Amino acid sequence: MSATVDAKTAVATDRRPGTGQRIRVGIVGATGYVGSELVRILARHPDVEIVGLTARGRSDEAVGATHPHLATTGLTIDAAAPDDVDALFLALPHGTAAGIVPDIAAAGTTIIDLGPDFRLRNPADYPRWYGFDHPVPELLDDAVYGLPELHRAELEALRTAPRAIVGSPGCYPTTTLLALAPLARAGLIGDLVVDAKSGVSGAGRDPKPDMMFGEVNESVRAYGVGGHRHVAEIEQELAWLGASAAVDNPGAAGVDFLPHLIPMTRGILAACHVRPTRPIDQAELDALYADAYDAEPFVTVVSTPPATKHVTGSNHVRVHVSADPRTGRVLAIGVLDNLVKGAAGQAVQAFNVVFGLPEASGLEQLPLAP
Amino acid sequence: MSATVDAKTAVATDRRPGTGQRIRVGIVGATGYVGSELVRILARHPDVEIVGLTARGRSDEAVGATHPHLATTGLTIDAAAPDDVDALFLALPHGTAAGIVPDIAAAGTTIIDLGPDFRLRNPADYPRWYGFDHPVPELLDDAVYGLPELHRAELEALRTAPRAIVGSPGCYPTTTLLALAPLARAGLIGDLVVDAKSGVSGAGRDPKPDMMFGEVNESVRAYGVGGHRHVAEIEQELAWLGASAAVDNPGAAGVDFLPHLIPMTRGILAACHVRPTRPIDQAELDALYADAYDAEPFVTVVSTPPATKHVTGSNHVRVHVSADPRTGRVLAIGVLDNLVKGAAGQAVQAFNVVFGLPEASGLEQLPLAP
Amino acid sequence: MSATVDAKTAVATDRRPGTGQRIRVGIVGATGYVGSELVRILARHPDVEIVGLTARGRSDEAVGATHPHLATTGLTIDAAAPDDVDALFLALPHGTAAGIVPDIAAAGTTIIDLGPDFRLRNPADYPRWYGFDHPVPELLDDAVYGLPELHRAELEALRTAPRAIVGSPGCYPTTTLLALAPLARAGLIGDLVVDAKSGVSGAGRDPKPDMMFGEVNESVRAYGVGGHRHVAEIEQELAWLGASAAVDNPGAAGVDFLPHLIPMTRGILAACHVRPTRPIDQAELDALYADAYDAEPFVTVVSTPPATKHVTGSNHVRVHVSADPRTGRVLAIGVLDNLVKGAAGQAVQAFNVVFGLPEASGLEQLPLAP
Amino acid sequence: MSATVDAKTAVATDRRPGTGQRIRVGIVGATGYVGSELVRILARHPDVEIVGLTARGRSDEAVGATHPHLATTGLTIDAAAPDDVDALFLALPHGTAAGIVPDIAAAGTTIIDLGPDFRLRNPADYPRWYGFDHPVPELLDDAVYGLPELHRAELEALRTAPRAIVGSPGCYPTTTLLALAPLARAGLIGDLVVDAKSGVSGAGRDPKPDMMFGEVNESVRAYGVGGHRHVAEIEQELAWLGASAAVDNPGAAGVDFLPHLIPMTRGILAACHVRPTRPIDQAELDALYADAYDAEPFVTVVSTPPATKHVTGSNHVRVHVSADPRTGRVLAIGVLDNLVKGAAGQAVQAFNVVFGLPEASGLEQLPLAP
Repeated sequence: MSATVDAKTAVATDRRPGTGQRIRVGIVGATGYVGSELVRILARHPDVEIVGLTARGRSDEAVGATHPHLATTGLTIDAAAPDDVDALFLALPHGTAAGIVPDIAAAGTTIIDLGPDFRLRNPADYPRWYGFDHPVPELLDDAVYGLPELHRAELEALRTAPRAIVGSPGCYPTTTLLALAPLARAGLIGDLVVDAKSGVSGAGRDPKPDMMFGEVNESVRAYGVGGHRHVAEIEQELAWLGASAAVDNPGAAGVDFLPHLIPMTRGILAACHVRPTRPIDQAELDALYADAYDAEPFVTVVSTPPATKHVTGSNHVRVHVSADPRTGRVLAIGVLDNLVKGAAGQAVQAFNVVFGLPEASGLEQLPLAP
Repeated sequence: MSATVDAKTAVATDRRPGTGQRIRVGIVGATGYVGSELVRILARHPDVEIVGLTARGRSDEAVGATHPHLATTGLTIDAAAPDDVDALFLALPHGTAAGIVPDIAAAGTTIIDLGPDFRLRNPADYPRWYGFDHPVPELLDDAVYGLPELHRAELEALRTAPRAIVGSPGCYPTTTLLALAPLARAGLIGDLVVDAKSGVSGAGRDPKPDMMFGEVNESVRAYGVGGHRHVAEIEQELAWLGASAAVDNPGAAGVDFLPHLIPMTRGILAACHVRPTRPIDQAELDALYADAYDAEPFVTVVSTPPATKHVTGSNHVRVHVSADPRTGRVLAIGVLDNLVKGAAGQAVQAFNVVFGLPEASGLEQLPLAP
Repeated sequence: MSATVDAKTAVATDRRPGTGQRIRVGIVGATGYVGSELVRILARHPDVEIVGLTARGRSDEAVGATHPHLATTGLTIDAAAPDDVDALFLALPHGTAAGIVPDIAAAGTTIIDLGPDFRLRNPADYPRWYGFDHPVPELLDDAVYGLPELHRAELEALRTAPRAIVGSPGCYPTTTLLALAPLARAGLIGDLVVDAKSGVSGAGRDPKPDMMFGEVNESVRAYGVGGHRHVAEIEQELAWLGASAAVDNPGAAGVDFLPHLIPMTRGILAACHVRPTRPIDQAELDALYADAYDAEPFVTVVSTPPATKHVTGSNHVRVHVSADPRTGRVLAIGVLDNLVKGAAGQAVQAFNVVFGLPEASGLEQLPLAP
Repeated sequence: MSATVDAKTAVATDRRPGTGQRIRVGIVGATGYVGSELVRILARHPDVEIVGLTARGRSDEAVGATHPHLATTGLTIDAAAPDDVDALFLALPHGTAAGIVPDIAAAGTTIIDLGPDFRLRNPADYPRWYGFDHPVPELLDDAVYGLPELHRAELEALRTAPRAIVGSPGCYPTTTLLALAPLARAGLIGDLVVDAKSGVSGAGRDPKPDMMFGEVNESVRAYGVGGHRHVAEIEQELAWLGASAAVDNPGAAGVDFLPHLIPMTRGILAACHVRPTRPIDQAELDALYADAYDAEPFVTVVSTPPATKHVTGSNHVRVHVSADPRTGRVLAIGVLDNLVKGAAGQAVQAFNVVFGLPEASGLEQLPLAP
């Protein structure tokens, strides 16, 4: 792709592929659940060619050995990342991508990082929330928080930027922010409790005692009490949207975010309990949310509380908002599939925007229910 | 039992059974999940004899036909309620018990009603939350809200009262109130969001489209948005405990309570997000909760967030409380088995108190995990 | 489509669509799980236009009211079947399609019937297994059993036939037959036990007490003891393939088929325990199965026992076969998604063959795991 | 207990406890699922005192740290086994108990071994099925296979034996043997396929990748193809019962046993497909099974296929048997809770028999459903 060749000399003209051209991509960290979702989606993406899958210590191993459901793709996993790609998707533990991205991005390869290393603007957030000092803090301002519904213009601008780094959002922040964005932009969030419920796939694929079927099934528990890492993203973006009062007011220095693990594999639901800054009725809420989402391809506002099953396996989001006349509060609920819109699907959506493709390309699959 | 004979002439001396005597009980509404739990517990209760199980339209039908797991009890279900019993457990749709209780209670039979008909003190709550006018509002003051941890003395007083009616609490209120009682009594609840998660057995056994396995499994959704009926009990008891500010303050006229249905059969978790009326640290919280629960046979305070699986099949409750220095909030979590401590077990616990038995009699079973 | 116009006068030349033409289809019985799967697949089928969805008593009702996950399709459900379609997919209770198909098929509309009414060749099987006399037994010889892996040539012949009726196979027969076909064709099945396990979606969407989450979860049970209806199809096709000995031998007059309901929503596994008619080793088995399936787009032979999760949401099948030197038996296992390859996906696959489309058109979606 | 003191000098008179005496027991291997079930049951056993729980590397650790549901027992786990106990329950990996049992048993302590080390009579079975040479083959004849329904007299004889070693059966063999014993004793099993389904708790508590919730949920798969270890027990006992033809006949040298892992935590169902040695009708089957089980406290014969949920959390077994006139076969189904009657409960049942206690002592708990 000539555009990319130029990009590699840091004189990118345009990442948009020529007619009939496929964008060459690699996936680093292909053995986890996010990695397998990237393969599932990108293997069927009409404008993409998967050039390489990589994971530490693998050598020409059939993808089906790790992900039996993907055996028919015929792909293999190798230790070395492909070097001749237009875009790299990184699904790595936190702190890992930050070390390898600078060189790769400087060479013109577009980076879609699904870890947290390029999500936060404030370098101080890394030692605070993730326990490491960011090695290239100067890149954080360049990187774009890859939530297209909030940062579409910035993602589009990457199409012709010399360096393109996308920090793809976490699953909880995506759910929470899409549920709250219209309220946040309107300055209506006065006090905020976010109570979230997630399936176990968000915890990854490594065997852990408390992720065994016998422990998870027929049980629910809260975790991350006192501050889940995703709070950093939620607060950053809420403040950016205009809800800084909710984030920083003296009595409530920080969002009250509590996640729960529930006995299912996929899906997140965030229930956002908002005390609005002023009285607001249902009609005004409906108008706010319609304005925000009517043109969005993946967000649907629904009048009854949605179930996660309504979006399983798809990049779709359902958002519900209601005013409660009894309590004066506003309830905003978002649901999505944590591995698709909460991870791999959203990464592909941002990738599509950066490369000038139709935003839904490769993501048209309808939800799978029941 | 001579005591009961006296009771039937409204001159009760004492409901406590004589040595070697078994209390004769009946269960009305034996075909639902709560009914089967009553059978399961009472059939093994050392001080009880089950005299009759009743359900509309059944005639001498083996209990195993409806509840195969109870087949070995050899009990049968009939249409007519036994008339010679010391106590009746009622597991009936709301509005039904209110019509039959007055006569039965007047005849001296102790009533343990597991529906809502005798839980609420204010007659106006019935049309508001349940859509019917209470037929005997004069009995509401006599009835005792059967949460022994909060109303033990009143339950004990029923032992020698001429008329004994217990309104056994709902599953969500039990969980929420036990999580919050120490804070409420100390006047510390300034603002309150209760976000609860329940297994499906709380919805009963009648076939409903959205309770089918295919709909519930791999999904979570909120329901009761805008006011679940259990709010009435929660607000009544919180106000009684001393948290009226949280319930009635101008900006927050009512508790923000949101339940969710999650893909499991048994268990409730209530996450109570509290903005305290004054700053409070962990040490003070620990002391408050230790004071409240150290002597309670069924409530254990735990330092890590509990899972519902820790109490499945038992009358146990686990409560966790933590101060969040970042947000200034307090998080209180309660978990229990909705069919045991949230229904049948709690009813038996209150029954034990009313009859002067050891409070844990018949309820010693340890939780079943995994 | 000119071909179809000709077909309607019973002078079909060719059902294959012209370049750029979309085949107009209707779905009758759109409110069940099979109906929703047909919508999910056909709405994304590149060569199809869904002209109408119908269900009794519905009138211009958004599909999302019944199937929230399909809300974004914008389709509506009506009572009347569309009359100007090239093909009708029928997802109806047994005995219903038989009454309406003759006229529709005579008018040239291709019928893909997902019920049993056109699966069985022997009219006597209908009163025996389904309790009704087939009203148009003369059509049974024309109808094609729509398992493309076994009857591809007959399906292809329908492309230019004046009348095209496909009896799309049941979920258990599909799984069993694909697991056994190579052995059956080779005359190797001497004695046969088929022990199958299915998720609950195969039982449909109507609320039934024993399909409630609380009953299904954490439980497994056999059902259909003494003869599940799908035995009829299994025996018919095994005999046709060449395993009549297994079906009709004096000591074993009929296949021993036992299904189980297990606590999951989608997926079927059939474990076929075969005593072969002569000793056979693994190498010969491998060769037999490779011959049968290497060119099949949807069937993959695997060397380790497959899990249903490997094919969820896709039209894929995994087949495993192994010789057991200890017992002298052969074990053949098949897994598939009962709503896709076991119902809607297979119907679309057969439809593709009948209309001369690429067989995998609209069915390329990869399995969804975890 | 004087009896035990005598036993320690190998001159046991009687293990039956004196009035008011509690039998002192220890549990070795207390951190797994079987260990926790032993605690759950024995902590409530009226005739038992738990003297010690042990696990490698633990020192005075509260049992609740490993098994939160047992926190209220107040027990602790230590590394060293208690030396002054009447009975030791061993829940250890195969090959471990064989090394420590000889000394302990010689000292008069009754051994209830829940692993396989003392289940098999033939020393050659250990290298064949478990990969180790049994270090004390001479003890195998003394040890009793602890299935009270089959070996009650031998267990009773241990009450006064100088050395008492019980090899407590595996979960699959218990289910299979109880389903088949009446047929086996009557010499009616001509050909046999056992197709079993189990929840995951049978695989233990160690974290394994394929036991993670995300892998198990919504999936079913066969495993142990070609010979699960439990075949050894099944064949041994079937031969002992009189079904040696099924086990050893030339055409079928060995039982065809296939287990499956299904998405639930507890429960086993074994479907036993029998071709009888002669025609048999339902009435004769009913009589055979009634004779065998009418007096058994834990086995109930049921006329409809049972679900595992009917016995969860209890020591109960449900057995169903039916003749299939169509195929001439007999289907026998057994269900039980793999951790109770399939492990800890059965061990306690055998222990009760050995110590002359009521056989159901400590095991009266009814099943927990839904």
